[in-house]
Amino acid sequence: MAGNRMKLELSRVLQGGSRLGVLKGLGRTGQHALDVPGCLLYTHFGTVPHLTQDTLHSLSNLPSVTQVTLSNIAEHQEVMEEFKDGFVKFSGLHDTVLYCSLHDPATQCPTGYTTNKTVSVWGSGGRIELTVDKFMALQKAVKPDWYQSMADGETWQSNTSRKRVRKSVDRTLAHLDECLLVHQKSQELEGVEVFGVVEGGDILEERLRSARETAKRPVAGFCLDGLQMGAIEQNLRTQLITAVTKELPEDKPRLLQGVGRPDEVLACVEAGVDLFESFFPFQVTERGCALVFSFDISPDPERAGRAPPKVLELDEERNSMEDKQQNGDLNLDDQTQMTSFEINLNDKRYHDDFRPLVEGCGCYCCKNHQRAYLHHLLVTNELLAGVLLMIHNTAHYHGFFGALRNALAIDEMDLLKRRVLRERKDLDG
Amino acid sequence: MAGNRMKLELSRVLQGGSRLGVLKGLGRTGQHALDVPGCLLYTHFGTVPHLTQDTLHSLSNLPSVTQVTLSNIAEHQEVMEEFKDGFVKFSGLHDTVLYCSLHDPATQCPTGYTTNKTVSVWGSGGRIELTVDKFMALQKAVKPDWYQSMADGETWQSNTSRKRVRKSVDRTLAHLDECLLVHQKSQELEGVEVFGVVEGGDILEERLRSARETAKRPVAGFCLDGLQMGAIEQNLRTQLITAVTKELPEDKPRLLQGVGRPDEVLACVEAGVDLFESFFPFQVTERGCALVFSFDISPDPERAGRAPPKVLELDEERNSMEDKQQNGDLNLDDQTQMTSFEINLNDKRYHDDFRPLVEGCGCYCCKNHQRAYLHHLLVTNELLAGVLLMIHNTAHYHGFFGALRNALAIDEMDLLKRRVLRERKDLDG
Repeated sequence: MAGNRMKLELSRVLQGGSRLGVLKGLGRTGQHALDVPGCLLYTHFGTVPHLTQDTLHSLSNLPSVTQVTLSNIAEHQEVMEEFKDGFVKFSGLHDTVLYCSLHDPATQCPTGYTTNKTVSVWGSGGRIELTVDKFMALQKAVKPDWYQSMADGETWQSNTSRKRVRKSVDRTLAHLDECLLVHQKSQELEGVEVFGVVEGGDILEERLRSARETAKRPVAGFCLDGLQMGAIEQNLRTQLITAVTKELPEDKPRLLQGVGRPDEVLACVEAGVDLFESFFPFQVTERGCALVFSFDISPDPERAGRAPPKVLELDEERNSMEDKQQNGDLNLDDQTQMTSFEINLNDKRYHDDFRPLVEGCGCYCCKNHQRAYLHHLLVTNELLAGVLLMIHNTAHYHGFFGALRNALAIDEMDLLKRRVLRERKDLDG
Repeated sequence: MAGNRMKLELSRVLQGGSRLGVLKGLGRTGQHALDVPGCLLYTHFGTVPHLTQDTLHSLSNLPSVTQVTLSNIAEHQEVMEEFKDGFVKFSGLHDTVLYCSLHDPATQCPTGYTTNKTVSVWGSGGRIELTVDKFMALQKAVKPDWYQSMADGETWQSNTSRKRVRKSVDRTLAHLDECLLVHQKSQELEGVEVFGVVEGGDILEERLRSARETAKRPVAGFCLDGLQMGAIEQNLRTQLITAVTKELPEDKPRLLQGVGRPDEVLACVEAGVDLFESFFPFQVTERGCALVFSFDISPDPERAGRAPPKVLELDEERNSMEDKQQNGDLNLDDQTQMTSFEINLNDKRYHDDFRPLVEGCGCYCCKNHQRAYLHHLLVTNELLAGVLLMIHNTAHYHGFFGALRNALAIDEMDLLKRRVLRERKDLDG
C-alpha cells in the first residue's frame, strides 16, 4: 500500500449509488478530513485565481484539500528541488492537504503526445514531456499528500477508436505499476497516497477492465478520467460511471475529473462519485458571470434568511440562450460557454441593478457590492471584477456542495434536484 | 467660500518651504483628517486596482481620502444619478473622504480637445465632453466631499507656445468662476469643497498669474497641474513650484498632480507641496515590479526590526538600467519605465530567490510569500501577482510618506534624502 492513512467512512449509501461520508486521515499527520460528496479546492499554481490566501480564508466551508496540477508546476521543477521544502511552503499556503493532479481541468489538452513511456503537460513555456522518473522526481519535489498517477487520457474525443482506447487502458496501468515501483522505494514518499486512474473512453468493457485492474493495485483511491464536460453525453457518462463504480472497492474514494456543472455533479453523485474538482466557478468568473442558481431546500426560505430564487431572471437568460442555441450561436458542450446556472454581468440589463448578486448570500461580494457595480467594473476592465466574482462563485459553489450533502443526509435529493434543475426542466418540459 | 470646514493646521514650516501638519475637518461631518505631506488613495472607479476593500484595509496607515477621477466615472453619469446615494455608497467603499479629480494621473490625455466652454475626459467608451453644466451635474451625482474644478491642462508638452499657455490660464480661471457660480447656487453641494487649478505650463509669469488669480477665488485649496512626470525637468519644476507656492495662502493645501517618484516627491515637498496622488505604486505593479528603496532613518535599522537596505541589489538593477540608458533603450522621463526604486520580478534572477520582497516589511505579501513565488506567478500570468505586488507597493509607498513626515518632525530630511537617493547619488557622483 502506497499510503496508509486515508480512510473513507461512509455514513449512508443510497440505493441509486449516492454515498455520504467523510474521507479521514488526510495529510502527513493524518488530522485532516473532507466531507463527501465534496470537491477539492481548484488552484493555479497553488492560488485560487485572483484571491490571496487571506481573502480565500474569509470564506467559510472551504475544502481542506488543495489541488495543484503538474501542468502548472512541471516547468518549475528545478526551483522546487532547490527550495527543498515542498510546494505548500513555497506558495505560502495555509495549512492544507495537497493533492497533485496531472492536467488542469479548466483547459483542454492537445492529443497525440502520450507514448508508452511518457505523458506530456503544457505549461506557460510549452509542452513538457514526463517520463516516470521525471514524474516521480516532481512528486518528491512538490511533496503532495496525495497524487494522481501518470495516465493516458487521450480518449475523450468521440471518434477515438476501440484500439486506441484499449491502448490507453494498457498504458495507464503500465504507468501506474511503474510509478508504484518508484514510490515504494522512495523514503521521501512514505505516507503519501496514490490515486490510480480509470480510463476506457466510452467503451463499457474497457472501462470495466480498467477499473478492475486498477483496483488490484495498492492505490488509495481512483480518478475517473476521460469523462469531462464536453467529451461525452450525460446519460452515457452516468451509465459508464455507474458500471465502473460497481467494480471499485466501496471503501475507497472516487474522484471524477473535469466535471463541474451542478446538474452533472448531481447526476454523477447518484452514479457513485465522491469527489469533484472545483474549476467550474473559475470558468464562470472568467466569462464575467455569477452563479445564482438556487440550492435552498429549507421549507421556508424566507425564514432561513435566504430569499426565494430569482427564477424569472434565470428564465430570461435561459430564453436568450435558447434563442442563441437555435441560431447555432451556442454550443452547450463547449465548457467556456455560459450555462443556465449563472447570469452574465456584462449584460447591460445590470447597469442599474442595485441588488446583490444573490439576495441573502453571505459572501463578501454580496454583502458589500451590487450587480450594477460589478457590471461597471467589468465594462471598465477593472481587475477587481474577477476578484469579487471569484469570491462569490467560490462561496456559492461550495455552498452547493454543502446543500448536496445535507440533502443526502435528510433524504431530500429529489427536492434538491428539482430546485437546482428548475429552470432547465421548465424549459425542457 | 464653497466649503467651510477644511482646515490646514501646520505644526512646522521649514526654511526651504517644507510644511508639516494636518488637514482637518474633512468629509461631510468634518471628522476626518489627513497628515501632510501626504498622498491620496489612488483608485480606478473607487477601487485600488486588484484589491478588495477588505484586503486594502488590512494595510495600516492608509490615507483617509480616496481619489476618483471623472475619466472613470463620467460615462456612468446616468446610473449614478439614478442611484441617488453618491459614489461612495455605489462602490461599497468603507468610510472615507471622497476627492473627485478630472483626469487619471496614471494615463496621458490627448491634447487638442479643450475649448472655452468644455473639457474632455476619456473613459472606456471613448471621449466625453464636459460643459460646466454637465461637469457640475456629475459632481452632484458623485457627491464627493471635495473636487477639482474644471481646468485646461493641455500645456505639458514642451513645445507649447506662450500664447497657448496664457489661454490655458485664462480658460481655467473662467471655468473655475463658472463652476463656483453653479456650486454656490446648489444646495446639494453645500459643505463640499472646491480646489482651484493652477496652470501656466513652464512659464513663470503665467504660473504666478494663475496662482494669484486662483487664490482670490473662494477655493479650499489648490491643484498644481501641468507639472507631471515626463512633462518637465525636475529642477525647473521645483523652481516653478517654489515660486507658485509663495503666491498661495499659507493656510490652504497644495496638491501636486501627476508626480509620484520618491525623489521627485522629496524635491516637491521641499518646494512647498502638501499633497500627492498615489498612482506610482500602481504603475510599478503593472510592470511586474516591487518597490524596495529604503526610507529607514532609524539609528539602528537592525534594532528597529528592519534589515539594512539591499543597496547592492538596487545598484545592480540601476547599473543595467544605466547601460540601457546609454544605449538609448531607456527614457527616464517615460513614466511607464522602471525606476531605480524598484526591482523587476519578471527577471529570472529571482526565480530561486527565497527572500521576501523587502526584509522586515510587515505587509501581507512579504510576510507570506517570497520573490521566487512572485516571479513564478508573473511568469505563469497568474492574476494574483498583481494583487500581491499591489499590496506590497501600496504599503511601501504609504510607509515612505510616513517616514517623510517623521523626518520633517525630527529634522532629518537630509538623512532621508540620502537614504532614498543613495543609489542614484552613488552613480551620479
